[in-house]
Amino acid sequence: MLVGLDPRAGSLPEGLRPSETESDPAVIAEAYGRFCRGVVDVVAPLVPAVKPQAAFFEQLGPAGMTVLGDVVRYASEKGLLVILDGKRNDIGSTATAYADGILGSGERSPWGADALTVSPYLGGDSLEPFVDVAKQREAGIFVLVKTSNPGGGMFQDLVADGLPVYRHVARYVERIAEQTAGQCGYGAVGAVVGATYPEQLVELRTEMPHAWFLVPGFGSQGGTARDVAGAFDAGGTGAIVNNSRGIIFAHTRKPYADRYGESHWQEAVEAATQDMIAQLRADTPAGNLADKGGA
Amino acid sequence: MLVGLDPRAGSLPEGLRPSETESDPAVIAEAYGRFCRGVVDVVAPLVPAVKPQAAFFEQLGPAGMTVLGDVVRYASEKGLLVILDGKRNDIGSTATAYADGILGSGERSPWGADALTVSPYLGGDSLEPFVDVAKQREAGIFVLVKTSNPGGGMFQDLVADGLPVYRHVARYVERIAEQTAGQCGYGAVGAVVGATYPEQLVELRTEMPHAWFLVPGFGSQGGTARDVAGAFDAGGTGAIVNNSRGIIFAHTRKPYADRYGESHWQEAVEAATQDMIAQLRADTPAGNLADKGGA
Repeated sequence: MLVGLDPRAGSLPEGLRPSETESDPAVIAEAYGRFCRGVVDVVAPLVPAVKPQAAFFEQLGPAGMTVLGDVVRYASEKGLLVILDGKRNDIGSTATAYADGILGSGERSPWGADALTVSPYLGGDSLEPFVDVAKQREAGIFVLVKTSNPGGGMFQDLVADGLPVYRHVARYVERIAEQTAGQCGYGAVGAVVGATYPEQLVELRTEMPHAWFLVPGFGSQGGTARDVAGAFDAGGTGAIVNNSRGIIFAHTRKPYADRYGESHWQEAVEAATQDMIAQLRADTPAGNLADKGGA
Repeated sequence: MLVGLDPRAGSLPEGLRPSETESDPAVIAEAYGRFCRGVVDVVAPLVPAVKPQAAFFEQLGPAGMTVLGDVVRYASEKGLLVILDGKRNDIGSTATAYADGILGSGERSPWGADALTVSPYLGGDSLEPFVDVAKQREAGIFVLVKTSNPGGGMFQDLVADGLPVYRHVARYVERIAEQTAGQCGYGAVGAVVGATYPEQLVELRTEMPHAWFLVPGFGSQGGTARDVAGAFDAGGTGAIVNNSRGIIFAHTRKPYADRYGESHWQEAVEAATQDMIAQLRADTPAGNLADKGGA
C-alpha cells in the first residue's frame, strides 16, 4: 500500500492547523510541510511509497510548490518512493519538459519524483516522452485508465469498436509496459484503476499483465480490501493500493479519533496504516507486498 | 490572437540565454522571468491575452513555479488576460483545489490566472468544480476537445455511438457553455481545438455555438490563418488563436532573424505579432478581434 499526502488546512490536527481566518498561502503551506513530514516519519518504516497530491500544494501558489518540493525530498531521504499525483500531460516537447523536470532522483530532476500520474486524452505521442524519460531514469508513470470517481465513465466507458475507451487506453498502456518490462515482468508504465470498480480491476489485470496498477479509491471513496483483490497477480504482486484521507486524517475518524485524539494524531496515522496492511493481507493475494516488502 | 509564453533555455536571445552548462534551475528560471516580461512589454499593447505554458516553468522545480507566478502577475498588471496552459484536472474536491488556487484575479487566488486549460478524461464531475469557480470569479476554462498534435486522434477519434469521442466531449462542453452564457452569447467554458484540424474546427464551431475556442497549432505546428478561419462565428468572434514559438522566438526565424537579429529580439516579437494579426484580418472573419479589440 501507499499513503496519499493530500493536506487540507481544515483537517490538520490542532497545533498544526492554521487559524480559520488565515489567508497567507505561505503560512498554510508551512503547516502542510510540517504535517506531511510528520506523516512521512510515521509511515516510512511501514510502506514503500507515498503519493503527494500536487493540487493541494499548487492551490497555495508558488509557496505551496516550494513546500511540495521539500516534502518530495524529505520522503525520498526517508527511503520512500514518491509518486507525484499531478495527472500532467501535454504534447511533444512540452510533455518532455514535464517528464524531465518531475522524474528522476537526485540532481537530474529539480522535483525528484520516482513516478508521476499522467492523463491519456492527448494520445500516444503525448505519452512517449514520459516513457522515454522514465526508462532513462529508472522512474515510472501511471496512466489514467479507469478512474475512481462516480462520473469517470462519461467518456471512459464510451464503447468504440466493441470496447470501452478505457480498454483502448489499457491496450496501449500494456503495449508500452511490455516493451519496457524488466526482470520482474513489469514495465515502466503502469495504470491508474479505481478500487471503486472491482470488476474492471479483474478484467484489466488480465488484459495488462505487464502494467503496475496504482489503485486509488480505497477507504473514503468506498473501496474495500476485497474490492482491490483483483488488482494483484497470482503471485500477490503488480498493484499498489492508495489511501489518503483514511490514513493521514485518521485522527478525525472512528475508531482512531476516540483512541488517540488530535494530540496523538501520529499514533492514529500509524494504527490506521497497520490496520489497512492487515486488511490487504487478509483479503487480497498481496501477502507481504502490502507492507514494506513491496514496491 | 494570443501569445504563448513557452520559454526554453536554448532558444532565448543572447544576453538572456543561460550558458549551455548552467544547471541551477533558479538561474534558468530567472532568465525565463526576464524574457517573459520582455515579451509581455512588447505584446501588451497588441493582443488581449498571453498563455504561459506551465510545463516549462514546472520543469525547473519550485524556482520555476515562483517565476511563473511573477509572470502571471506582471502580465495582469500590464492589462493582459492570462490563460494558464496547465491541462490540469482531478476528481471532485481535488479539482476544486486546482480551480480555487489557479483561477481568479487579485487576492482570491495565489496564481491569479483568468483562465486555465483542463483535460476531460476524468468526466463531467471532474469539470464541474472548475465551472463553479470560474462562474464565481468571472474566469474561464478551456477543455481539451480536439488537440493539435499528430497523435491526438488515438483516443479522441475513436467512434462511439456514431460520433468520435471528441464530439462527445464537445457536446458536454457546449451544454455547460450554454448554461453559463453571458450577454455576449459565450459561456465560461470553452474548447481547445487545434488549428491543424481545419475541417473539425468548422464542424465544432457549428456544434458548440456557446463555447469560446482556444486554437493552438498555428505557425510552428503548421496551421495557417486560412486553417483557423472556421473557428470564428459569422460575426468574427468566438475564437482566439495562439502562437507561441513563432512569436517569442521570432529572432530565430526568417525573415525576422535577418531583419532584427538576436540583439533586437523584442522588435522581432513585435513584427511577428503584427504580421500574424494582419494574416488573421486578411484570411479570417476575425476583424479587429485579432488584435487588442478582442478578448
